[in-house]
Amino acid sequence: MPKVDPLAIRQGDRLALSRALTLVENNAPESRELQSALFPFTGTAHLIGVTGAPGTGKSTLVNQLAKHFRLAEDSKPAPKVAIIAVDPTSPFTGGALLGDRIRMGDLSGDKGIFIRSMASRGALGGLAHNTAAFVTVLDSAGFDLIIIETVGAGQAEVDIASLAHTVIVVEAPGLGDDIQAIKAGILEIADILVVNKADRPGADNTARALRVMLEMAQGKNGLRSAKGKHAFNSKQASGSSTQPAAEAWLPPMHTITATEGKGIDALVADIQRHADYLHSSNLWQQKEATRLRRDLEALIRDTLVHKWRMELDQQQFESVLSDLLQRKYSPIEALETLM
Amino acid sequence: MPKVDPLAIRQGDRLALSRALTLVENNAPESRELQSALFPFTGTAHLIGVTGAPGTGKSTLVNQLAKHFRLAEDSKPAPKVAIIAVDPTSPFTGGALLGDRIRMGDLSGDKGIFIRSMASRGALGGLAHNTAAFVTVLDSAGFDLIIIETVGAGQAEVDIASLAHTVIVVEAPGLGDDIQAIKAGILEIADILVVNKADRPGADNTARALRVMLEMAQGKNGLRSAKGKHAFNSKQASGSSTQPAAEAWLPPMHTITATEGKGIDALVADIQRHADYLHSSNLWQQKEATRLRRDLEALIRDTLVHKWRMELDQQQFESVLSDLLQRKYSPIEALETLM
Repeated sequence: MPKVDPLAIRQGDRLALSRALTLVENNAPESRELQSALFPFTGTAHLIGVTGAPGTGKSTLVNQLAKHFRLAEDSKPAPKVAIIAVDPTSPFTGGALLGDRIRMGDLSGDKGIFIRSMASRGALGGLAHNTAAFVTVLDSAGFDLIIIETVGAGQAEVDIASLAHTVIVVEAPGLGDDIQAIKAGILEIADILVVNKADRPGADNTARALRVMLEMAQGKNGLRSAKGKHAFNSKQASGSSTQPAAEAWLPPMHTITATEGKGIDALVADIQRHADYLHSSNLWQQKEATRLRRDLEALIRDTLVHKWRMELDQQQFESVLSDLLQRKYSPIEALETLM
Repeated sequence: MPKVDPLAIRQGDRLALSRALTLVENNAPESRELQSALFPFTGTAHLIGVTGAPGTGKSTLVNQLAKHFRLAEDSKPAPKVAIIAVDPTSPFTGGALLGDRIRMGDLSGDKGIFIRSMASRGALGGLAHNTAAFVTVLDSAGFDLIIIETVGAGQAEVDIASLAHTVIVVEAPGLGDDIQAIKAGILEIADILVVNKADRPGADNTARALRVMLEMAQGKNGLRSAKGKHAFNSKQASGSSTQPAAEAWLPPMHTITATEGKGIDALVADIQRHADYLHSSNLWQQKEATRLRRDLEALIRDTLVHKWRMELDQQQFESVLSDLLQRKYSPIEALETLM
């Protein structure tokens, strides 16, 4: 693997970028140096987490979002958009190239869009740390928007999405009973709710059920209940310095049909308004702090375990394990013997 | 919380059982003692992991399995069945009582069935360790079959199911493109594949696609390809002592309609044949060893982190974090400063 020049990455060289991300995925020692070199040049990208159950059409939605951000008329030059598809079950390794090419579709000609899957089953640094490292590389390369797409049915994946500045939770009609549980669980992390596949039967019911759950959740948190489709209050973005967080963000709900691009414009507008809200209310900084703290804690955890493994008396470990198997020890007693 | 008598649990006292599981969930110090007292009386239960994406009808399938195991004519007395529903996104805490009662349905009158959800968002011991502790309690209480049901879209949840003796992966027709990725990823852990909702359009396509993937996977592993619906070779269960693992297990595929109970009998038969195969080929012991090793490793990891946290200079940590936020340090440099 050739050495990657941090400067080439910062200048947006796509080959250097791809190589750097592969170094991260392979947990190469060089990737740590690279991260340290790039980290000072990060902190400006808007991180957008998109999560939802399988079958909700997240990938189509994410591709549409990227396209609309690129075409937005009011922003010149158009923002550069990166997509990280966190797919813990992907069968592809080393960058999921085939999958990425299929996903690119009609985006593939646009140099301002970069898509990369993270096929990180068994990654040494863990899913969460690898995502953070991907964000560092892409942020330093000048991407204005980084969309992190995760399958939102597992705790680890939901946790990753929840670290973004703006979290979009995607639902779709008719996915069965399990969805109810997921909804309840991930509702609390949503900044924006999307009911995709609005052209399908049952979409109205799904939207109605979500709205009820949303209002219940907001009632519980002492917020006034949302009214109408867009619960967002535009005053929130005005940024009163005397009451920095007086107006809470009420997650708006969008019903869209991503395959036809219906409803994407309004969704893009709300994503931008959420960024404005975060900046004006100082929540942006708070979210950054939480994200970096969690990443540091994950690094510490991995390092502690690694160190312990290096120092471990393997023979003693196997002997304790054998006693455990014979039920001479309980797991807790085995732990006490080893530590 | 009253003290729980280990003997009451071993005698199958349901109230003692419920209390013990709550102690585990709350990570009460008493739960560790209890585990050590119960652990010597474990190791006989057949652990069955059931995993699949949301919307595949896992809960219905699991309830049907429990019912059929209870009614199986050839086994007297009927086996006692426990169900652990690992739901990381459940909004319920402290045992998910309401959810469990709804789930019980027509099983609720049967004393030989015990259902418990694990609502463990943010559990201190982690999802994996809590599942292991639940298994210890239920195994010692004399449950012959312990079904561990997880939403198989997250890495952590798939990992938990994969530690069972017999892993059943559930699919259903028409859940969208994401499913393809999940299939590929969890196929390798499946001992038995189920296509549920066989009455729905597209079920044949789903079964066909799965069969192709299964044959590809088996070809890759150097196994002969599966033929017909039941790839299982009945010779495998005969237990030749000269060639203990010469005949590999070929995961059979079942197309079923759980809501109507169609296809459950054949599935139950294959689950029992898989248990026989594991015992006769010595794989049962190997799986036990892997499971206990993983649990011990998880315990060690949690303990290391806990110890580090206790010894941490909080002031130094906050100061490093602040430098990190200002991009004076990279996360790796922050780590080096702290350790």
